Amino acid sequence: MNDLSEYTLRVAQQARAASRELALVSGERRNHWLRQAAAGLRKATSTLVQENARDLEAAPGYGLNAAAIDRLRLTEGGIEKLASALEEVAALPDPLGGIIDSNARPNGLLVTRVRVPLGVVFFIYESRPNVTADAASLCVKSGNAVILRGGKEALHSNLAIYRVLAETLAECGLPVHAVQLVETTDRGAVGHFLKMPQYIDVTIPRGGKSLIERVMDEAKMPVIKHYDGVCHVYVDASADVQMAVDILINSKCHRPGVCNAAESLLVHADAAFRFLPAAGAALQARGVEVRGDERIRQAWPFAKPATDADYRTEYLDLILSARVVDSIDEAINHIADYGSHHTETIITNDLAASRKFTAAVDSSAVMVNASTRFNDGGELGLGAEIGISTDKFHARGPCGLIELTSYKYVVHGDGQIRM
Amino acid sequence: MNDLSEYTLRVAQQARAASRELALVSGERRNHWLRQAAAGLRKATSTLVQENARDLEAAPGYGLNAAAIDRLRLTEGGIEKLASALEEVAALPDPLGGIIDSNARPNGLLVTRVRVPLGVVFFIYESRPNVTADAASLCVKSGNAVILRGGKEALHSNLAIYRVLAETLAECGLPVHAVQLVETTDRGAVGHFLKMPQYIDVTIPRGGKSLIERVMDEAKMPVIKHYDGVCHVYVDASADVQMAVDILINSKCHRPGVCNAAESLLVHADAAFRFLPAAGAALQARGVEVRGDERIRQAWPFAKPATDADYRTEYLDLILSARVVDSIDEAINHIADYGSHHTETIITNDLAASRKFTAAVDSSAVMVNASTRFNDGGELGLGAEIGISTDKFHARGPCGLIELTSYKYVVHGDGQIRM
Repeated sequence: MNDLSEYTLRVAQQARAASRELALVSGERRNHWLRQAAAGLRKATSTLVQENARDLEAAPGYGLNAAAIDRLRLTEGGIEKLASALEEVAALPDPLGGIIDSNARPNGLLVTRVRVPLGVVFFIYESRPNVTADAASLCVKSGNAVILRGGKEALHSNLAIYRVLAETLAECGLPVHAVQLVETTDRGAVGHFLKMPQYIDVTIPRGGKSLIERVMDEAKMPVIKHYDGVCHVYVDASADVQMAVDILINSKCHRPGVCNAAESLLVHADAAFRFLPAAGAALQARGVEVRGDERIRQAWPFAKPATDADYRTEYLDLILSARVVDSIDEAINHIADYGSHHTETIITNDLAASRKFTAAVDSSAVMVNASTRFNDGGELGLGAEIGISTDKFHARGPCGLIELTSYKYVVHGDGQIRM
Repeated sequence: MNDLSEYTLRVAQQARAASRELALVSGERRNHWLRQAAAGLRKATSTLVQENARDLEAAPGYGLNAAAIDRLRLTEGGIEKLASALEEVAALPDPLGGIIDSNARPNGLLVTRVRVPLGVVFFIYESRPNVTADAASLCVKSGNAVILRGGKEALHSNLAIYRVLAETLAECGLPVHAVQLVETTDRGAVGHFLKMPQYIDVTIPRGGKSLIERVMDEAKMPVIKHYDGVCHVYVDASADVQMAVDILINSKCHRPGVCNAAESLLVHADAAFRFLPAAGAALQARGVEVRGDERIRQAWPFAKPATDADYRTEYLDLILSARVVDSIDEAINHIADYGSHHTETIITNDLAASRKFTAAVDSSAVMVNASTRFNDGGELGLGAEIGISTDKFHARGPCGLIELTSYKYVVHGDGQIRM
């Protein structure tokens, strides 16, 4: 595929050149583009709806189910939301240029660390056209050039959105290749990009496990990966029963298909007698299938037996694994052995237990008396997010604007040399 | 190599278990170990010198040159330095546990970010026994378990140091596998470790380019890589001549074999007439070979012609490439095209030029009127460093204690659920 390798090389080189230029564009000019792009999207509403209709028509042929088609759909209201989201990103503080910290050395050097963009982001995502505009806005706001690779089922919608973004970049005098959309649906293109660490600084894959595993396997540059979320609700001995039931139901049922939904319940034996009757009724009322150990099944005759594999499974569905533990240490060890370091919550009124749990549990977010569903960029106060990292390296948990930046040391002297 | 795969798996699993335990050990207990280890090394001086003698005896057989043998040597004074270095690390602030930032959400959730260890570090390094103690001290201070893989030429010295570290870990009640030394010199062991992302969180390779390239190629976990340093000294139109000469000579000649030594000189045409005569004399006096463009060679008849490849070369020797540029933009573009994003310095008295250079040059450290040699953990105020990252991801520039940590979100609520 010589054409494909030439095409991807050109796109990557254009992105690198644009990133150098964009790194020097002021925050005000980046924000101006965001507002112009929002206006452009609003103006293009009828075109966007038309192009989206082509994708919707083809969607059943791709085997998309009703939920996926729903995520693919762009309505007038959806486009207005898209445009407003760009304006909200414009209103966020500029992540660039500020001094992170500084220190004066004994020899008179003034050492500062300054935030800078990562450079070029290669972003691979599912068939949701709104993500095209969201991701482009976060990348450009943080001074990064982005290569967008959306799901093939959304290609016409993505191209239509992309055209507005590119036109407004040109109108605003920003580097037009700051945002590029991969215009081929050939899966080989991804492989080419993953082998260009000289032009691409980070790859962010969003989507199924097989995509992420492929990217981890092939990428020659750093990857911010969004892997699985086997999230736990631990009901401690001292838990308030009603609070525990509410948090369990919210964590499990609010949106069962997302990564920060709870998949596993651990109950302290001393709370079981109080908690399990109320929780069982609430789960049954919501139609949740439970797979539990022996003590769970004694309390909940409707529960099926859990296998060891159940405790490692991210169901992404109305299914919950459950287990009674005899101590908080047993709960912490269970989470370390079976969890995925994503999000866990303890429901407790015991200060020592809360300190122990938050210290010992090694997850991107550890909650006390709150739903696992709060592990989200918007909910944690990051403003917006491009994904949730399950890594401990560079970014952990939600990736907002700051997580799309790096830093450099800027050192001012007056002739210092090293002795 | 079934034995090797079993051995490396056991080491990695022990490291993971130790890292979980170590993450909960208080700063005071980590510091106590550092001081006990220092005392242990002092007490073991004669053993260390004896074991080191075995390595020194074998060194010529490994083809080590005089400089390498010098780095391999452990004298009584060297062991005292080693011990003091551990005590200095003990005196540094604890990187763990503190709250990095926090915000209160409108729904009453208190969101904090807390520093946590990375987990398990796999550290590969050259044949310098002092690095064994240094790296172990930085990793344990930052709550990480470490697997040390030193150069084979230092194995007896490393083992002797390691025994002291392990014994004092046990005496202090810290997990004894927090520090492990790979006891085989089989190169296959490295390959096994690089394929265990489930047990090892980050690999830090220090050494030659071929080692780093191998690690980048094989590692399944993040790598903090210390790649090449093609560092530039740019003498701007307004530079003070004496300052520029001093900084050039210090950057090039202070320690030519290290990564933050200058390899390339760029001179603004307007400064050439003033600067080149003095600089040429100073370089000749130091025996520096210069490879320059036409204008350089007109001013310096002793200079050889530079090829394009020269401008990309990290000589690590008393050789300097040089070029006259007509503007600061030409210098910035040259650095972007030929540099390695490590360290660059501008010598100038022009405020606008200094602002432009520090904004546009994308290197881990950008100096103004200071030697490139200051890009070093100790010199920049990080206390100590385990390496210098040439990446923009996670850590950039010197990696000290903070760069050996990650963070987690700890969120306190009183029953909040997501609406």
